[in-house]
This record gives sequence, C-alpha cells and structure tokens, in this order.
Amino acid sequence: MSISQMNTFGTLFRLTTFGESHGAAIGGVIDGCPAGITLDLDFIQAELDRRRPGQSRLTTARKEGDKVELLSGCLESPSGSGELKTTGQPIGFIVRNENQHSSDYDDLRDVFRPSHADYTYYMKYGIRDHRGGGRSSARETISRVVGGAIAKLCLRQLGIDVKAWTQQVGNIACCRDWTQLDLSLIESNAVRCPDPVIAQQMEDLILQVKGEGDTIGGIIAGVITGCPVGLGEPAFGKLHAQLGAAMLSINAVKGFEYGDGFAMAEMRGSEANDLFVPASQGKATTKSNHSGGIQGGISNGQPIPFRVAFKPVATLLRPQETADIHGNAVTINPRGRHDPCVLPRAVPIVEAMAAMTILDAYLLNQQQTLPPPSL
Amino acid sequence: MSISQMNTFGTLFRLTTFGESHGAAIGGVIDGCPAGITLDLDFIQAELDRRRPGQSRLTTARKEGDKVELLSGCLESPSGSGELKTTGQPIGFIVRNENQHSSDYDDLRDVFRPSHADYTYYMKYGIRDHRGGGRSSARETISRVVGGAIAKLCLRQLGIDVKAWTQQVGNIACCRDWTQLDLSLIESNAVRCPDPVIAQQMEDLILQVKGEGDTIGGIIAGVITGCPVGLGEPAFGKLHAQLGAAMLSINAVKGFEYGDGFAMAEMRGSEANDLFVPASQGKATTKSNHSGGIQGGISNGQPIPFRVAFKPVATLLRPQETADIHGNAVTINPRGRHDPCVLPRAVPIVEAMAAMTILDAYLLNQQQTLPPPSL
Amino acid sequence: MSISQMNTFGTLFRLTTFGESHGAAIGGVIDGCPAGITLDLDFIQAELDRRRPGQSRLTTARKEGDKVELLSGCLESPSGSGELKTTGQPIGFIVRNENQHSSDYDDLRDVFRPSHADYTYYMKYGIRDHRGGGRSSARETISRVVGGAIAKLCLRQLGIDVKAWTQQVGNIACCRDWTQLDLSLIESNAVRCPDPVIAQQMEDLILQVKGEGDTIGGIIAGVITGCPVGLGEPAFGKLHAQLGAAMLSINAVKGFEYGDGFAMAEMRGSEANDLFVPASQGKATTKSNHSGGIQGGISNGQPIPFRVAFKPVATLLRPQETADIHGNAVTINPRGRHDPCVLPRAVPIVEAMAAMTILDAYLLNQQQTLPPPSL
Amino acid sequence: MSISQMNTFGTLFRLTTFGESHGAAIGGVIDGCPAGITLDLDFIQAELDRRRPGQSRLTTARKEGDKVELLSGCLESPSGSGELKTTGQPIGFIVRNENQHSSDYDDLRDVFRPSHADYTYYMKYGIRDHRGGGRSSARETISRVVGGAIAKLCLRQLGIDVKAWTQQVGNIACCRDWTQLDLSLIESNAVRCPDPVIAQQMEDLILQVKGEGDTIGGIIAGVITGCPVGLGEPAFGKLHAQLGAAMLSINAVKGFEYGDGFAMAEMRGSEANDLFVPASQGKATTKSNHSGGIQGGISNGQPIPFRVAFKPVATLLRPQETADIHGNAVTINPRGRHDPCVLPRAVPIVEAMAAMTILDAYLLNQQQTLPPPSL
Repeated sequence: MSISQMNTFGTLFRLTTFGESHGAAIGGVIDGCPAGITLDLDFIQAELDRRRPGQSRLTTARKEGDKVELLSGCLESPSGSGELKTTGQPIGFIVRNENQHSSDYDDLRDVFRPSHADYTYYMKYGIRDHRGGGRSSARETISRVVGGAIAKLCLRQLGIDVKAWTQQVGNIACCRDWTQLDLSLIESNAVRCPDPVIAQQMEDLILQVKGEGDTIGGIIAGVITGCPVGLGEPAFGKLHAQLGAAMLSINAVKGFEYGDGFAMAEMRGSEANDLFVPASQGKATTKSNHSGGIQGGISNGQPIPFRVAFKPVATLLRPQETADIHGNAVTINPRGRHDPCVLPRAVPIVEAMAAMTILDAYLLNQQQTLPPPSL
Repeated sequence: MSISQMNTFGTLFRLTTFGESHGAAIGGVIDGCPAGITLDLDFIQAELDRRRPGQSRLTTARKEGDKVELLSGCLESPSGSGELKTTGQPIGFIVRNENQHSSDYDDLRDVFRPSHADYTYYMKYGIRDHRGGGRSSARETISRVVGGAIAKLCLRQLGIDVKAWTQQVGNIACCRDWTQLDLSLIESNAVRCPDPVIAQQMEDLILQVKGEGDTIGGIIAGVITGCPVGLGEPAFGKLHAQLGAAMLSINAVKGFEYGDGFAMAEMRGSEANDLFVPASQGKATTKSNHSGGIQGGISNGQPIPFRVAFKPVATLLRPQETADIHGNAVTINPRGRHDPCVLPRAVPIVEAMAAMTILDAYLLNQQQTLPPPSL
Repeated sequence: MSISQMNTFGTLFRLTTFGESHGAAIGGVIDGCPAGITLDLDFIQAELDRRRPGQSRLTTARKEGDKVELLSGCLESPSGSGELKTTGQPIGFIVRNENQHSSDYDDLRDVFRPSHADYTYYMKYGIRDHRGGGRSSARETISRVVGGAIAKLCLRQLGIDVKAWTQQVGNIACCRDWTQLDLSLIESNAVRCPDPVIAQQMEDLILQVKGEGDTIGGIIAGVITGCPVGLGEPAFGKLHAQLGAAMLSINAVKGFEYGDGFAMAEMRGSEANDLFVPASQGKATTKSNHSGGIQGGISNGQPIPFRVAFKPVATLLRPQETADIHGNAVTINPRGRHDPCVLPRAVPIVEAMAAMTILDAYLLNQQQTLPPPSL
Repeated sequence: MSISQMNTFGTLFRLTTFGESHGAAIGGVIDGCPAGITLDLDFIQAELDRRRPGQSRLTTARKEGDKVELLSGCLESPSGSGELKTTGQPIGFIVRNENQHSSDYDDLRDVFRPSHADYTYYMKYGIRDHRGGGRSSARETISRVVGGAIAKLCLRQLGIDVKAWTQQVGNIACCRDWTQLDLSLIESNAVRCPDPVIAQQMEDLILQVKGEGDTIGGIIAGVITGCPVGLGEPAFGKLHAQLGAAMLSINAVKGFEYGDGFAMAEMRGSEANDLFVPASQGKATTKSNHSGGIQGGISNGQPIPFRVAFKPVATLLRPQETADIHGNAVTINPRGRHDPCVLPRAVPIVEAMAAMTILDAYLLNQQQTLPPPSL
C-alpha cells in the first residue's frame, strides 16, 4: 500500500511534514507510531546530527544546531524508569531555523535558478518563497530524519536493521557487493563510505570540485537486513515500489534500483534465478540474491540491497545564464551556502526513508490474516 | 500525491484490479474518469491486442482473445452521434480467461518455483493459487492496459502523448537519446524497437535464447510529451516518484530512472544544469533536458524521458533445483507456456502506467488554486 | 481511519463498486479480505435475496434474480474439503441486470424528477444516465450487500454479530430499547420488524400509503454485539464517525445516532454517565450503556446500538410539477416500478455497511502495537 | 471522497493534528491550502478566542491564552501590501499549553473515569496519558478551529458561508427553522443562541445545573449557504456523509441529521419532495428544502442545514463510583476544571469542521471534468 499524499508519507506509520528553509521552523507529525516504544532522544538527535550542515569541510557552512523538540505523543514510563514511552498518539515536533541569512537571496527574488524548483513552483502556485529554496530546500528532509529515527527505534525492537552509505561519487566507486564491505566503517569518514581507501579518493574529488566552484553527483547504496517474509503487497503496493517511491521523493534523486537492478537487463534467466534451498520449519532460503530479497513484490526474508542515484547539486559558485519572471535573460552570480556534493549528508535521509517504508509495510502485514476461529 | 493501495492505483483517476491467471476473469474498476470523454472501444481493444499473448513467435503460445467488456460508466451520447461517452461514474470491465490449461500446473501445487512469487505468497497468506502464478501472473496487467487506454483517451484531449519502446534486450541496445529515434517505427516490428536494424538483432537474440530454453532481460524506454508545467507535488508526491512507483509495480521491474538518471552520478553541476531561456508569455524553456522535464518534483513543460529495467523471465524450459512446502529439495521440470523475453508485450503496460500517472497528476493539479474573488 | 473515496469504501477491507440500474451489470471488487476465510456462497446469495426486489407485496415489482458470480480471489481448499477459501487476493464479482424496461424512462430523459439526483448529476457531470436513476439507483447497494456478506463471514469467525431491523415506519414504532426485543423474529415478517404486532401495523400502513400512490419514511435500528475493546481511532476516525459515514452513504438516509443519541441532548451527566464495574482480568464493564459501546471514539466491549433515519421514496404514483433541462416547468406522470417504503429491503444494506465498518476497524486495530522485544 | 485517517482530516484540504491537554503544545499541519489566500491572523485568533476556556461564567475556569503561531506555508505578499499570503505549502502551527495543573490529576492515574476515554485508551494502547484526558481532551479541537479558520478564509473568497449556533440545551430549544432566526445575533450572548429570550433561559439552566455539580447536553444547529451545485460524490463520498463524519468526530457528539432529518421518518413522499422550479440559465431551484440542499449526495445549490447532538459533559462535581486498572471498585471525587455544558464553546468547532468539509468538497469538484478539446 502507499497512501502518501502531498506532505504526508506512509499508510499506517505516517509522517506529515512542514517548513521552509527560511521560515520559523521545520517540523512534522508522526502518526501511527505503535504505543510503548522507548523514545531515545539522544539517538534521535544523533541522527539529525548526521544530516546537519557544517559537520565537515565537505558540507555547507550554514551553521544550524538543528535541535528537535518533541511536543506530544510521549509520556514518562508509568513504570518509573524515567524512560520516555510512545502513547500511540501523534508525535508533533519542531526544529527552529536559526542561521538563515535571508537577505543573501534578495536578488534572486525574480530569478529562476537553473535546475532548481524556482520556475516550476512559480508556475504552479503563482507565488514562491525565494529564500534559500523555500519548501524545495533540503532542510525539508530534517523532518524525514526525525521520522526515520523513530521508525528505527521500532525496527530495532523487531530485529530489522537499515544501513546506507556513499557507494559512488563522480567516477569513484567502492565495491557494489555489500557483502564484501565492512559496514561498521561507514561513519569512520566524512564521506560515509565503508571502504576507507575509496573514501579518501571521494573526499579528494569533492574538495577538488568544490575548489572549481562546481558540484558532483553520486550513488548511495543501502541494505535492509532482518526483514521477515511477507512485507509488501502483490499489485501496486509491491515492497520495492514503495521503497522506490520513498527514495525518488528525496531531493536530487534521479534513479532507483534494487537487487541486481539495471544489470539484470543483460542477464539470462539461468543466471538471474535464485534457487530455493529448504530451511528449518517449512521455510526456505535462496542460494543467491539477485532478486534483492523481494519476489512478487513481497519480502522473502533475504537482505534487501538497493541503490539510489543523485544528480550534482544545482547551485554553483560560478555565473550561470538563466531567465527571470519578467521574461528577461539574466546572469546569476554565485551566492548562498551550499554543499559541493550532497551524498554524505543524504546517507541518513536514505536510511530514514527506508526505515519508515519497512515499518509501514510491517504494520500493514499484521492485518493480513485473522486469528483462528477458536480465539 | 499517491493513494495507491493494495489493488487500487491512483488518487483521483483510480484503477482497482482483480483476477488470477486461471480464474474466471480478469477485470477492474476505473473510478474518477472525467465525464464526457468519448470511449473509442476499438482503440481500447487495440491496446489490449498489443499486450495479448500469441501475437508473434517472440511470445508465449497461450492463446487468448482478451476481449474486454465494459459494464458501466458510459452511455450513448445524448447528441445522437452514436458515440459512447463517459458519465463520470465508475467503469467496470471484465476480460474472461479462456485458454487456461490449469492441469499443466498440477505438479507445481506444492513447489516454490525459483524467483517466482510462490514462496512469498504462501508464507504471507498461508494459501496460494498455484495455477499459472495465480494473482502474480502477468495477466493481471490486462486491467492496467484497459485503464491506461482510457487514460490515453483523456490525455489525447489534453494534447499529452505517452510512448514507450524496447530500448535494450540483453546487451543489444538502440540509442538512449530518444530525440534521435523515429518513434513512428515502434510498432513496425515484433520487438517494438524504433530502430529497425537493432530490432532485428534483438529478435535474433530472443529466438536464440528461446532455443536454449532460457530467457533474457532488457530495458523499456519511454517519453511523455505535451505535459503542461505544474504536474506533481513538492514533497512525497514528486511526479517522478509517482512515475517510478508506477513502473516498479509492474511484474519483473528492477529499476527506474528518468532524465539522465544514473548517469548523473558521474556528472558535474556545470554539465548537468539545464539553463533557462525566456519564452513567450512569461514562460521559460531550457537549453538542455538533463532534468528530464521535472524540477523539484513538478513538471517544467519539457518532455519526460524515463527508462525501466526488466529482469529475465523466471520460468525456464530447463530443469531447476528448488524447495517445496514440505521442506524437501526437489527438481522442477519445464512446463507451462511462457515468453522468452517479456519486453515486447510490456511496452503497452509501461505506456498504460505512465498514462494513468500523468492523468492523475493532471486532475490533482486542477485544484491547486481557487478562482479569483470576483467569481 | 476512513479512506473511503468516490466508489471505494474502507481502509484495509475495501469495497469498490460500479454499475447503473440499466447498465450491463452491477459489481465490485473486495480488496483486503483476510486469507483463509471460508466463502459460503449460499449465505452470500441469501443476503442478496433479502435485498432483492419482488420478494413481497411491500416491494417493487421489478423482477431480478440478482445472482452473484464471484470472479477471483478464492480457491477450493487445498485440504480437499471442497470448501471455497479466500486467498487474500481481490474478489471481483458481478450481478447482471436483467429486467430493465429502459424504455419506461424515455420521456424522463430531459426531466429533473423532484428529490431525485437527476438535477445534481446533470449539473455536476454535464451528462446523466436517465434510465432508472442510473448510478443513483438503489441497485448500487447490491454490491454493498455482497461486500457485507463476506465481511459477516469474517466477523462470524471473530464472534462479532451485526443485526438490523425496521424500528419505525411513519409514526408506527416498536420499542427503542433493543434488549427488550426478540431479534430472532426479524425475518419472520415482510417488514423485518422483530415485534410481530407492530410489524403488522407497519405493513398495513405501507399498503395503505401504496394504495394512495404515496410513499413513507422510517427508521432502521441496529446493534453490533461481540465487539472487542479497542476498535476505532481517537480523533477523526472515531468508530461512530466511521459507522455514521457508512450509514449516511446509503441512499435516502437523513440522520444517524448511536447509544442514546439525540435523546442525550436533554440528559444530565448524572443520568447519562455509564459507571464502570470491575470485571475479570483487569477488564471493566459498565452498569448502563448510554454511551452505546463507544467511548472516546473507541469500542469499550459493550453492544453498539444505533439508529438510521430514511426519508420517504421520492418516486410517487402521482403527477408532480418540476423543471426540465431546457428551463421549462413540466408535470411528470407516474412511471417506473418502485417501493412504497424502502425500509424492509434496506435492512440488509444497513447490516452490510455496519459489518464492513467493524471488520475494517478490527483489521486496523491489529497493528496498534508491536510484538514485545523478545520476538 | 473522504481520506481522513487517524489524525488527518480531509482529502485535498487536509488537517493533521497533534497534542495532549497537558503536553507541551497543541498543533497541526494544514496541507493543500490553495496558494494566494490572504491569511488574516486576527481572524484566526478571533476564532480561537471563541473556543477559548474562561471566556464567560458558563465555561471552565482553566485560563489559556491559546495564542497560535504559524510556522510555515505563508509569505508576505510580493506586492508589498504587507498582507500574509499562502504559498500552497503546508502550514504548520502550534499553540502552547500553559495553565495545566497536571498534579490535579495525580490520583486519577489508575482510575477509569465514567464515560471518559480512560478505559478504552488504556485497553487499546496499554498506556495512557491520564493528565486532563490526554489526547481525548477537548483541547485537541484547538487545531480544528485553526484549520477551520483558514478554510473559512478560502470559502469567503468563494462566497460560501458557514454558521452554527446553540439550538437546544437540555429541554430549552429555539426554533428549528433557521430561516426564522436572526443569525447575526449568535454572538450576542454567551450561550451562542440567536434567539435572545431562549438564550437567557439556556444560560439560567446551565448555571443551575452547574450549581448542582451536574452537566447538561444539547444540540448545535448549523447552515451552509452560498454552496454551488455539484459538491459531493455519488456513492460513499456523499456530501452529507462527509459532513456527518466530520461532526461525529467531535468529542461528545452522539447524533447527526441534515435537512428535515429524523423527522422525515414520519413524512410521506408527497410532503417531503422538493419540487423543482426553473431558474435562469438552465439552473433550477426548489420550492421547499426538506432535502437540506443535497440530493443524491451532491449539493443542489440550496442552503444545507444540519443538527448535531451533544451528550452532557462526563466530568461531574459529584462523587462517582467506578473501577480502576487493578480491578478494584473505587469512588472518584470531584476534581479538575470543566464546562457544565459544552455547547457554547463547541459552536466554533462545528463551524470549523463544516468549513473544512465544504472546502475539501469544493476542491475535489474542480477535477470532475476536463477542459474541452480545443484547449
């Protein structure tokens, strides 16, 4: 299933978000979070810190504390443990915007920046918030990271884990087979690549590109492990369709694949098929995992690897030709603060969207059957 | 927006489908079709014929007329023209299954075929229709083609066109730049590739693979033209997220990209940006179209090209090792009728899903603004 | 929750319907029915027969067999019992229209019948099916009865029961306190009132009204028993809001109340409060049930009684003044076949809508909590 | 249509709410508000002030400023007028809780108050916020009033007006025919009844009941005027079904009727039918309005009157017997601050829910037809 609409994501575990880059606050509402989950505030903030600007020299210099305030939906445990527990009610939260420098954007008020959302927002709504990209700013993803962090806390209880990493920057890539990587190293470097040698090359490339006033694209890979059999729906709500929509809704994403993905276009059935092997208690495993842990739209218990392609950031520190709302050709000069490469900070966002997708599918799967007649 | 759920696709133009490969009928309900559209029955049937088995030696030998019967939601035009007009009410339809050969599948009742949905359905539901794949059969897409045909009739009235073609089979590919292709040639060959030379090579490869009892994957490309500015939503309902989810919901799809897609991972911003050029009446066009006609999740008026990766068909005419529901290792022998390559028949399905996605986004966009106060 | 849209009802157990009074068929798709439910076809048909026209002299003379054909979503039990089992896949079904007499309606093509949907459909859609009310005909409720019958088969397995009856016709009413009635007598008379003496008076009134070419309204009462604690949502998806929307979506319904309903407007808190009494295993019961089994929008385990007001049928066997689409005042003369009182045939429709509402809420409630960490 | 789910109301104009009585804040997100609407902050605050506690001696003594802070989705008009304009992006807002007195509720931690949501929340979620009713508190409706105020600003631009008033308190009622009332007098008295003589009697009754430590129920009536023809859907999304669900989702509501409502149960068709009269430009009006402005689920252009029944407030200033979570019978003593009659403060809530329902239906109706082929 997928009942994402407008600014709401998810069917039963639902995140609704609001907020612009230069408005008062970014925030949202998490609805449908199961009751009784322990809310680890330090973990939630740590996830936000992974997304925060200014965390390394690879990212924008905009300084934001990005401190989250939870406004509802939780309660100190009646057990007296001092833990914060979810109550099953909607969790409202806000993150105040602080370091905005709105006046930096004054002369962009009437200009359509190339490959930004300025033109399409203006034409669709007749009005747009020109300050720092308004709603189309990547600051919108703060709310996704909060929702994802809480989803991860639920998944942890279920033994499901979601990890993502920078797999490629420009033409520098680490191994595509995640089983050959040591995922414990992801956070060991600023670029979030689990191969330290490749990570260094990626950093060098990003700094070189930054020095040229340019930007660079890349690919984030991820894997979901511990997922039980049965998540996803047969027709339009196939698990990978949900996962793909989640990833494609992240700013700057241009493609999604799972399992062997586009490479399967060149494969034969005899190479691509995953042969079943009997396992305990009527279950089966597979000899290989070309399918990527999903068959017929439903998880088969194997890991779910996927890849997400990001275009280069559209804001350059170079002059660019473009048009304005009056129909004039104009040249825009470099301004604002930006990332030369969005990948390192996008890793937690990819994880957040994957975590919410899987939790939602898990909750939906709980109602596929009824208790037997004797109950 | 995207309120697809379970067996329903779309938010305002909604297709709900039902039916198994060997059940009584495949069918569905199209809800939210605008009133007053002329229903060209010949066109709808012709679209089904493009998807029909047995149309060439490249496809399965299963013979099905696949004749659609419309059951509601239309009326002879009050004008007396004899045309059939939509009334704004739900359009129910069925296509009877005829050439089923269910007994072919008797010895697969307890077996999990490799890379099929047998195992996941059985584990999720505790029961599965083993005959010809049941609900996971590609016959489910008949309903999508009917929905897509009616969506195309609406889009035609709006000047929007959707075209898809076989762009790659195995390692044989035609040009990726659709502007270099003559799309009027798509239907000139059985494989539905607009480059006749490449098409012949693809056919040769498919027949060779078929002779070996094997199957082969490929890529279908498509393009949406004539799309106005403004379709799609900023956050979770980005137009390409909707389009991607639509494509990923088709059987055997493993990846989706739009615009320059995965290739943008290697590009720099200075290469990838689409510079705006003033056009008439306050509008703007772009010098290039790396973005693929969508910026910030909203259509910008340029064509929307995309690519969809298909894995090879999982049914082989070779013995394969697998497991059964009793926990035994078993060998399955070739049976059933199948396509050696799903691409040629999947072209109308890709078009159908794209057409429904765009029409839905068009209808949603009609309510973004209110009439001015004077009205 | 309530994600009913257009012609789809329900969130997880979902009924999508199509069909007009004089089209080829009435039908629908039931999506989200749990797998493994035994489909008792005789029961489903018997429910339709309770709604069927021509079942007594109180109802329209239109003769329809109203035989339902299930097209998908079920399978003979793998156990060999011969029972039909649901597979968790969508259940498509149709009921062919037979006894249509469309030409009876020729001279109503351009006329807006008073208190019918002719005017509003015409203004909304620009086209309307004038034959027998088209989509606004009560024949649309055939699909609801099929969906409700299958929901009842699920609820039976859960020990939940739904009953409705004719409580009032015109100014003839039986006792409002359902605990004072013998509900086993509902089907003992044509009007479906469990009080045989009152039932006879109701029949007499209906026949008298019919003899005068007039029609009469009434009230259907119902009660849901065996409902567990916990169904419904706190805010917008309150269980009674869902139930009310379900009832108000039935043709001719003008009001809904539950528990003591409108009578509570005149009560004091000290009269209206239901005091809790400790029961076994940490549960509680209530001394009274003014609340009607729902508190804070969530079922409390007590029976859920409700009442639904129906207006008199708008088709009269008398001349009536009205307007046509050309802006003329016209007089319509009696035509068509109709019920003098809709109540007796509406009883199974009320039950069907209640059954689907409760099953949907039951399924939704299954995902409110996660399994404990040890799992 | 109706895609309200959990804590989200509406399909295209959507309000998502969060917050408990004694949490940090009440708030929400308004999604789908058309762009370019002038946000009159004084009007929004004035609507909240109508709902605010402590506004008269008829209401609870809890003192709350209930000041709303808008966090996103609006921008100073580019025209320089200084007006605040909606941008089409989600409008986040919060209202801080201030005067909470949580310790008042300490001894209710383990007790199920009669006819409150304590028991059902506890059984459903396994945990509940016992402070002031937690999420089930009427403070949740603050968010509805904010959403309704913004909906009213949109409706004003469309010439649609929504008004509600206290029509009955206990057995004191003003005239049921709204056309006989002077609705400009609603705000002239504390009880919000447009008949000043009856209003005084209502106030006297409320104060008398309050003096006895008791509470009293009542009925709020409302009317929607200026509504165009065509709002609402034929089947499950009938306009009155949406309106009814909206009203039934308000705390303490037990019944809903529209047009002549329950009284139509006793009417004959010849009395109840609204005869059409030709009007200008192919439109028609009706001689009477028993139907309540809706026929076949779709608005017919006439006013839409409705009535909503409220039970008496469950919190009494008297001892009451009940049960606790340990299975003990206990007596609760009076505590907390409460309203003796919820009606006066519920008037703006009823208006808010009606306004959001109608605006949502208006937006949905904009996509029923396509522009003609020539466009």
